[in-house]
Amino acid sequence: MSNSTSTQIQLVNRPTGWPSHDDFRTATIEYGDLEPGQVRVRNEFVSVDPYMRGRMNDTRSYVAPFALGETITGGAVGRVIESESGALPVGTPVLHQHGWSDVIQADAETFRPVPDIEGLPLSVHLHILGMTGLTAYVGLTAIAGMEEGDTVFVSGAAGAVGTAVGQIAKQLGASRVIGSAGSAKKVALLTKKYGYDEAFNYKEVNVREQLPVSAPDGVDVYFDNVGGDHLEAALDAMNDGGRIALCGAISGYNSTDRTPGPDNMANIITRGLKLEGFTLANYLHHAPAFREKMTKWFAEGKIAYDETVVDGIENTVDAFLDMMRGANTGKMLVRI
Amino acid sequence: MSNSTSTQIQLVNRPTGWPSHDDFRTATIEYGDLEPGQVRVRNEFVSVDPYMRGRMNDTRSYVAPFALGETITGGAVGRVIESESGALPVGTPVLHQHGWSDVIQADAETFRPVPDIEGLPLSVHLHILGMTGLTAYVGLTAIAGMEEGDTVFVSGAAGAVGTAVGQIAKQLGASRVIGSAGSAKKVALLTKKYGYDEAFNYKEVNVREQLPVSAPDGVDVYFDNVGGDHLEAALDAMNDGGRIALCGAISGYNSTDRTPGPDNMANIITRGLKLEGFTLANYLHHAPAFREKMTKWFAEGKIAYDETVVDGIENTVDAFLDMMRGANTGKMLVRI
Repeated sequence: MSNSTSTQIQLVNRPTGWPSHDDFRTATIEYGDLEPGQVRVRNEFVSVDPYMRGRMNDTRSYVAPFALGETITGGAVGRVIESESGALPVGTPVLHQHGWSDVIQADAETFRPVPDIEGLPLSVHLHILGMTGLTAYVGLTAIAGMEEGDTVFVSGAAGAVGTAVGQIAKQLGASRVIGSAGSAKKVALLTKKYGYDEAFNYKEVNVREQLPVSAPDGVDVYFDNVGGDHLEAALDAMNDGGRIALCGAISGYNSTDRTPGPDNMANIITRGLKLEGFTLANYLHHAPAFREKMTKWFAEGKIAYDETVVDGIENTVDAFLDMMRGANTGKMLVRI
Repeated sequence: MSNSTSTQIQLVNRPTGWPSHDDFRTATIEYGDLEPGQVRVRNEFVSVDPYMRGRMNDTRSYVAPFALGETITGGAVGRVIESESGALPVGTPVLHQHGWSDVIQADAETFRPVPDIEGLPLSVHLHILGMTGLTAYVGLTAIAGMEEGDTVFVSGAAGAVGTAVGQIAKQLGASRVIGSAGSAKKVALLTKKYGYDEAFNYKEVNVREQLPVSAPDGVDVYFDNVGGDHLEAALDAMNDGGRIALCGAISGYNSTDRTPGPDNMANIITRGLKLEGFTLANYLHHAPAFREKMTKWFAEGKIAYDETVVDGIENTVDAFLDMMRGANTGKMLVRI
């Protein structure tokens, strides 16, 4: 038993537009002895995710805003280094939502043990086997009702969710999966590593002109991580009865203006389309089915992933901003 | 057996923006003797509907465009005046889709017999007991999944579909039904005759500011007949998990510009909303359940309706244009 110092990143201002370093502070927390039922965890990886930008605003949402002056919460993985809980002995790898810190001390019930998988870092529980993989699975299945033979279009396809969506869609029998990404390198990865049948660089084409070329038979399911011009292009390309899962709208997250929506909303009526937004918190009951399928695909070598890793808790804000700018391929992580 | 002259309204140009009389022609058709299995029907009422504007364009849709040079098809009711079909003897009241004509001659199979209801004109089969009633029912139930206790908002509420939506929502247990319409007279009708709890004149208020006042606890189901500013206002007012049935977007039907969509599409994600467009053709299997319920409510005196009637097949185009401008209360009809 001992005291411990923790470095944590806290939100101090609600950003308008792009967040800056002034919106955050680095706090040093001194933890005392563990109380009964508590554990102390040293994080190995901390997650930075697009949805966190929304939580920095004080707007109504399924997920409550981050509290000002408190540590940014979110996914992280680490190992128990001290324990007053029989359930989580020292050395146990755990997943939790305590967020942007190097060490965290709290009730054992707020941590979930995860398996050590041979040859893989614990970080896979933050993405392909964790929330980002589940987001991709829920969006394709529960929200968009993807069926075998569907043509699937994914925007922001080289991001953590997007790389999972393409691979899961192929495993579930999609006939054709098309992705957009923001660099030639990412586009190449989509087709060579992530099973996309076709991909394009949205910075070099007009998405509305390109999508019907990439999807000559139209799109049945659109998994939207971007919004804006991508959603507009998809509404033009959707087949009758098409389904759109709205997962993110990163193109507008840091906009201070109100951005006009698609100019072709009437297609929703004439083609009988369904658009549905979702926040994973309401779909966690799909996690067991997802884990069973994904663990099997993973073991069969059918699932690839990328990580973009930044070292040091003190660089978490930079990692978050780089991720929002699209600097990452696959999952953006901070390694402690 | 005899020859017969029919006056029919045909589409000769695809309108851009508002249709004009030059886009139509009046054709005189001479029918010869009936062939075996045919009937001749004298129409009593011909329907003009908002969806017909979409069919005047040559754009991809569930419903095929009207053919140039041919009679505008759509709902009509009349009586058999000559018959070579044992199934439909002379005098039988029938509903059909042969459209804008005073007399029509065709295979008996293309007509459906409807009951004469004491004290009511045949025209009720064109609206409250027919397609407009079914549209309201399908939008509320199959599309929006309305549940008891829901707050329901309806735009274009004084139109044929809107007056049905409000009453059906109340019968199905909505806790509060709010409607928008375009005149003080219509607004008064909504609350006095059509069971709306609250209504406002969208020409005299800012819809985005008014809706949260009219719906202080938010909106669970939005039945959209209008699009544009109404859809934007609804997206701001929807409760988490809200459902939007997109039935029409009359605000944009005659626009030649591409109209920007709502500037608050991100709410679809943060509140987990579902938007679904529908065209009735795919939901006709709900007709038996609808007819059973609606006939019962009707017999119990729980359902009111209005008709705005224009006389003479030669005035059909004017009736259509007046309806698009909102001159009607309830169902717009041409009486032959």
